Amino acid sequence: MLYDLTVVQFSKMLNNLNAILDKAALVAEAKKYDVTVLLNSRLAPDQFNLIRQVQIACDTAKIGVARLAGVVDSAPKHDDSETTLAELKTRIAQTLDYLNSFKAEDLAEAAERHISQPRWEGKYLTGLEFAIQHAIPNLYFHVTTAYAILRHNGVDVGKKDYLGAMPYKA
Amino acid sequence: MLYDLTVVQFSKMLNNLNAILDKAALVAEAKKYDVTVLLNSRLAPDQFNLIRQVQIACDTAKIGVARLAGVVDSAPKHDDSETTLAELKTRIAQTLDYLNSFKAEDLAEAAERHISQPRWEGKYLTGLEFAIQHAIPNLYFHVTTAYAILRHNGVDVGKKDYLGAMPYKA
Repeated sequence: MLYDLTVVQFSKMLNNLNAILDKAALVAEAKKYDVTVLLNSRLAPDQFNLIRQVQIACDTAKIGVARLAGVVDSAPKHDDSETTLAELKTRIAQTLDYLNSFKAEDLAEAAERHISQPRWEGKYLTGLEFAIQHAIPNLYFHVTTAYAILRHNGVDVGKKDYLGAMPYKA
Repeated sequence: MLYDLTVVQFSKMLNNLNAILDKAALVAEAKKYDVTVLLNSRLAPDQFNLIRQVQIACDTAKIGVARLAGVVDSAPKHDDSETTLAELKTRIAQTLDYLNSFKAEDLAEAAERHISQPRWEGKYLTGLEFAIQHAIPNLYFHVTTAYAILRHNGVDVGKKDYLGAMPYKA
């Protein structure tokens, strides 16, 4: 189930985020302003801007899955130098490619794996705790904050853009 | 696992939200303005205000879990009449009490359950799809948006307030 919760659902959310950024570009074009104004917008002076929110959403997905699969060094490196929408969309695409390289069996033992990161000073969470209490809430935090920055700046996005399509069955 | 993802983690997030609202009250008091100004704030004119974000976060948790457990009629009714912080905190507390009434075995068959709601016109999602693609992203959306409204209005909350404590092990 962790594969569906992370690899599959994180991919869906990053695709939704990508489409939301495309909507933002259309609004900027229609209103005749540079979309980089939106990319550099933030909700508070000491909060990360939209570029950084997207970068962290991507990193939360790629590093979260890499840690759960026990292959943290395999995640593609990004130096956080994106300044344009095209570069940001490339970052998302590279993250999606990386997520797509995982199969369900790669996360078969993820729930019991001990997950740590440098700032935790040697302490760890189980993979299940890490996924449920850390990676998943963080992913949604940054996607929602990116959405909120655009919403605050007049981009006409709605809950359906955030959630994406549902696999309804008749 | 759906019990941990929803009942347990939704409870944690609602407790975090409750603590964030307490922080907002302290800021309002220190800056000598009425906290209901914050409660009625929003990020865009056509977006729900903070009161509504909290109400929907609670409803997403209580109705989501009720549907997954197959007991949708058991969820406490709320008429969305909250106007004060105290009333909003009562709503959260009642939702937490309700979540706390579930045991892991109540959701043992949740993944395969067919979940529907009136607006889906007879279509359904499996419980697993509903949890991963609908209830969980919605819960985080409304908690993050509540957080963002406060952050935008100068309440000094941070990621740790949003995530809450982690069960680190040495």
